[in-house]
Amino acid sequence: MTRATVITVSDGVSAGVREDLSGDALEGMLTDAGFIVGRLVVPDEQDRIADAIRSAAGSSALVLTTGGTGFGPRDVTPEATASVIEREAGGLVHLMLARGLESTPMAALSRARAGSVGSALVVNLPGSPRGATESLAAIMDLMPHVLDLLAGHTEHHSGEPRSGG
Amino acid sequence: MTRATVITVSDGVSAGVREDLSGDALEGMLTDAGFIVGRLVVPDEQDRIADAIRSAAGSSALVLTTGGTGFGPRDVTPEATASVIEREAGGLVHLMLARGLESTPMAALSRARAGSVGSALVVNLPGSPRGATESLAAIMDLMPHVLDLLAGHTEHHSGEPRSGG
Amino acid sequence: MTRATVITVSDGVSAGVREDLSGDALEGMLTDAGFIVGRLVVPDEQDRIADAIRSAAGSSALVLTTGGTGFGPRDVTPEATASVIEREAGGLVHLMLARGLESTPMAALSRARAGSVGSALVVNLPGSPRGATESLAAIMDLMPHVLDLLAGHTEHHSGEPRSGG
Repeated sequence: MTRATVITVSDGVSAGVREDLSGDALEGMLTDAGFIVGRLVVPDEQDRIADAIRSAAGSSALVLTTGGTGFGPRDVTPEATASVIEREAGGLVHLMLARGLESTPMAALSRARAGSVGSALVVNLPGSPRGATESLAAIMDLMPHVLDLLAGHTEHHSGEPRSGG
Repeated sequence: MTRATVITVSDGVSAGVREDLSGDALEGMLTDAGFIVGRLVVPDEQDRIADAIRSAAGSSALVLTTGGTGFGPRDVTPEATASVIEREAGGLVHLMLARGLESTPMAALSRARAGSVGSALVVNLPGSPRGATESLAAIMDLMPHVLDLLAGHTEHHSGEPRSGG
Repeated sequence: MTRATVITVSDGVSAGVREDLSGDALEGMLTDAGFIVGRLVVPDEQDRIADAIRSAAGSSALVLTTGGTGFGPRDVTPEATASVIEREAGGLVHLMLARGLESTPMAALSRARAGSVGSALVVNLPGSPRGATESLAAIMDLMPHVLDLLAGHTEHHSGEPRSGG
């Protein structure tokens, strides 16, 4: 069983005045996929978000954020993420955007980042339940392989020098 | 009425030896879309470009550059832009590239960046009239929503916790 | 005749315990395209990779790396590349990812970067022979134009102010 943490970034959820529909939806998807899921909620404060990511990456193989990736004045999740990740994962961001744009041009409003912190993968997802779950669905099938590689399981089964790198 | 500034980045236009066809075309598109449009022209000098972006972002909601995004030795508009923007908008760049590549593989020569400076959105567009107008067309429908969000109008109409972020 | 260097980034190839199938395949493609091809092999060490890129960029118009772009603990080719390149070429990365994702969602595991160092173009390619050659094929037709622009041949043939920038 692999541990994942969902970090909900939202002033409203943090203050208890908004339901965390996106966090709940992501937890459901991850549980169905066999993850043990932890949850964190933080307001749209860059330091708080960065601390939550760092903390979650210490105990989870997969860290998903939802919220704070847009153009609102307080949307700083990508900036917090960029300050923490050690190696950017531009291909995963590309795949999420490409799939999202098949649904709606509004997907282009995402400023999401992804990358690794130690052996954990951190991925920003949009704040809406639909945007968050569609973005996660776009990369879900790749997660076992990515998390295996991050954990140092770099055996090659394909006969090629590297299977994906 | 919303203010926009078109910054033409071109040694030739700046020296008065080249017509500013791209700037004119962009001004036309923006005027048709209801913007009040200002114009600036700067040579391909990183400091001059950065100063022009900063200045325009102080008075306009939307700042478009045209020119200097390619591989010529003096093409440094993306570097000037990266030095000024506070929050990168990778999704908008992705959308412009995806649409551009539907027209021509040459769209991949763009090194354009986009992002916010305060409450202004800054977007690099290619230097050719066709490249510039096609790139702007790719994101034009999103502009009202992006500029609303940047201005702090974060009302949610969809019943979801966040409509796009 | 234009010079290119293929840098194979691989602990195994560097130690002589793995065949350099990807490097061989890339050399073949480049030779067929009329390049004079040099080869370098370095282990997955960030400083060694950065030094190899810098050295190759001093004598070649095109520098391709293969390997080290994935999520393995020692995959640091993009980080070494980012430390060396002066101007990022996000459009080329976008095109390689878009084409790769037409073949397999595993293409999203690439963290490749591209950009210029002086008048040389540096492009990260995946480590597998298939991934490396498909990525290069995606951008090969653009290379003459990109390398011309980087070399300062900025004549415009199209009648537009800039042909691609």
